[in-house]
Amino acid sequence: MCLTSASTPSLVDRLRSGDARALARAISIVENRRPEAVALLKTLFPSTGHARVLGLTGAPGAGKSTLVDQIAKHYRKENQTVGIIAVDPTSPYTGGAILGDRIRMQDHYSDPGIFIRSMATRGSLGGLARTTADVATVLDASGRDLIMIETVGVGQDEVDIVRLADVTIVILVPGMGDDVQTIKAGIMEIADIFVINKSDREGAERVEREIRSMQSLDIRKDGWTPPIVKTVASDGTGTKELAAAIGNYEAYLKNENLLVQKNVENWRERLIEMLRDAMLEKARARITDGALDRYAVEIAEHKRDPYSLVEEIVSGTAK
Amino acid sequence: MCLTSASTPSLVDRLRSGDARALARAISIVENRRPEAVALLKTLFPSTGHARVLGLTGAPGAGKSTLVDQIAKHYRKENQTVGIIAVDPTSPYTGGAILGDRIRMQDHYSDPGIFIRSMATRGSLGGLARTTADVATVLDASGRDLIMIETVGVGQDEVDIVRLADVTIVILVPGMGDDVQTIKAGIMEIADIFVINKSDREGAERVEREIRSMQSLDIRKDGWTPPIVKTVASDGTGTKELAAAIGNYEAYLKNENLLVQKNVENWRERLIEMLRDAMLEKARARITDGALDRYAVEIAEHKRDPYSLVEEIVSGTAK
Repeated sequence: MCLTSASTPSLVDRLRSGDARALARAISIVENRRPEAVALLKTLFPSTGHARVLGLTGAPGAGKSTLVDQIAKHYRKENQTVGIIAVDPTSPYTGGAILGDRIRMQDHYSDPGIFIRSMATRGSLGGLARTTADVATVLDASGRDLIMIETVGVGQDEVDIVRLADVTIVILVPGMGDDVQTIKAGIMEIADIFVINKSDREGAERVEREIRSMQSLDIRKDGWTPPIVKTVASDGTGTKELAAAIGNYEAYLKNENLLVQKNVENWRERLIEMLRDAMLEKARARITDGALDRYAVEIAEHKRDPYSLVEEIVSGTAK
Repeated sequence: MCLTSASTPSLVDRLRSGDARALARAISIVENRRPEAVALLKTLFPSTGHARVLGLTGAPGAGKSTLVDQIAKHYRKENQTVGIIAVDPTSPYTGGAILGDRIRMQDHYSDPGIFIRSMATRGSLGGLARTTADVATVLDASGRDLIMIETVGVGQDEVDIVRLADVTIVILVPGMGDDVQTIKAGIMEIADIFVINKSDREGAERVEREIRSMQSLDIRKDGWTPPIVKTVASDGTGTKELAAAIGNYEAYLKNENLLVQKNVENWRERLIEMLRDAMLEKARARITDGALDRYAVEIAEHKRDPYSLVEEIVSGTAK
C-alpha cells in the first residue's frame, strides 16, 4: 500500500523526530479526514503502543483543564513528554471549540514537551470518538510518553472517547446539584480513579460519602476499587497523590495482565466502527446526492417506503 | 417482499384497529430489532404520516413527564389519541429505564386513548434515535393523532431524537446553575418553543431574560422566533397557553410549507443512517466472531494495522 501524498514520508520522519509543527500538521490531516489520512495512519501504526493514555472526564466547571495542566507539569518534571487532546463541549449546530488552543497554549508555550490540541464536537454521531482515537495514534507515533484525553462527561460520545484510555479519571466537585449527578450516571461507572477537585469547598465530604455508597452497591468485575483523590487543581494540591494513584492502577493493570485485555476489547469495538464507516462510504458511492434528495422527497411524500429502498440500494437495484 | 412471520398480518390488522396490546407487541418487535421488524415496518409505512409529532427535551428534574401528562390530558379533551415515547436517562452499562412504564401508566390506566412507552438508552451509538423513529412509525400507523417524544436534553443522541419531531419544545426551570446551561448549549438552538416550567419559583424572569438575550444574537433562518411559555406542570398552569403556542407553530409550518421541507431533510439523514446500519450488517456477515477476536488481538499486539485490515475486509481479501 503506497502513500498517496509525496510529502507524507518527510512529514512522517519529522513527526517521529518530535517536530511539533509536523505533529500539528499530521493531526490536522487525520482530524479533517483528508484523502492522505489513511495512508498516514497505516504508516504510523507500527510505531504506536508505547504511550500511556489517561482519560479525564467531568462536568463543565469541574476544573478539568486546570487539573490536566497540573498533571502535565508533574510528569514534565519526570522528563516525560505529554500530548493533550481537549475535546470541547460545543453546539452540534455552530461547531467550533469553546476553549481555544490559544488560551491554554500560552502557559506552556516555552515548553515543547507539552503539546495541546483542542477538538470540537463534529456533527456526525460517533465520528468524534473515532477521530480522537486517530489523533491519539498520531501523538503516540510522535513519541509522546503520556497522552491525556480530556472530555466533558455528559453522554455516550464521551463514554466512547474515554474508553480509549488505559486509565479513566472522573472528576467531581462539591456543590453541584443532584441533577448534575443524574447526568453523570453513566460516567460514574467508568471511573478507575475518582478525583474530588475544588476539595477545599464545602461539601467535599458529602461527595466522597456518595461515591463510597455507590461503590458499596457495585463491585467491579476486575476487583479494582477506584480510589478517591482530593485535589485543589488551582494551587496544585493533591497532584502528587493523583499521580501515585495513577501509578498504582497502572501497576495493577500490568500485574493482572488486564491492559492487553482492555486493548483487545477496545479494538474489537473500534474495528466494527471503522468497518461501518468504510461500508457506508462504499454505499454512499453508489448513490449521487441528487438521487439521495429524490429518495428523501419520495419518502417524505409517502410514495416510497425507506425500508425497502435501503435493501434495494445495498443490493444495487434501487432506481 | 413477503412478511417473514405468519402472525404479522393479523398483528397489523389489530394494530390498525387501535388494539393497545397489538401496539405494545409491534413496538417490542421494532425496539428489539427482531427478524420480522423490517417486514412489519414496510407494511406499516404506507399508513403513516398522519400523526403530529412533538419532541420535548430538558434536563433531569425539569418536570418533563408531568408536563407531557398535562399536554396529553389537554388533547384527550379534544378527543385526540396520544402516544408517548419516554426516552429515559440510563447508564450505558447497566441499561434499563429509570422511570418505569408502570408508575406513569397507572395514572392513565383507565384511558386507552393514551399509550405510554418508556425506552432505555441502548449501548450502541445512534441506535436509539433510529429505534425511536421506528417506534414513532408504529404509533403513527396505529392511528394515534399525536405522538410525543420525551428525552433528557444532554447530548447529540437527544438532538437526533428530537429532530424527528415536527415541533420541538425545550423545557427549562429556574434555579439551575450555569453548568447545566452550558450542557444545554446544543439543545437551546433546536427549540421551536421554550417552556419555563416550575415558573412559580424564583428566577423565572431571569431564565426568560437569558433566552431573550440569546434570541437577539441568533436569528433563525426560517424567520420564526420561538415563543416562551411559562408553566407550572404540577397544577396545569400554562398548559392551554402551551397548546396554543404549539398550534401557532404548526400553522406557521403549514403556511410556509416548511413541514414537508423538514421531513425531507429528516429523511435524508435517516436514509444515510439506515444505509450505514444495513451496510454494517453486510460487512459483519463477512467476518465471524472468531475472526473479529483474532483481528482485535493482532491489532492490540501491533502485529497488524487496523486501517489496512478494514480495507481488506471491505474488499473481501482479509485473512
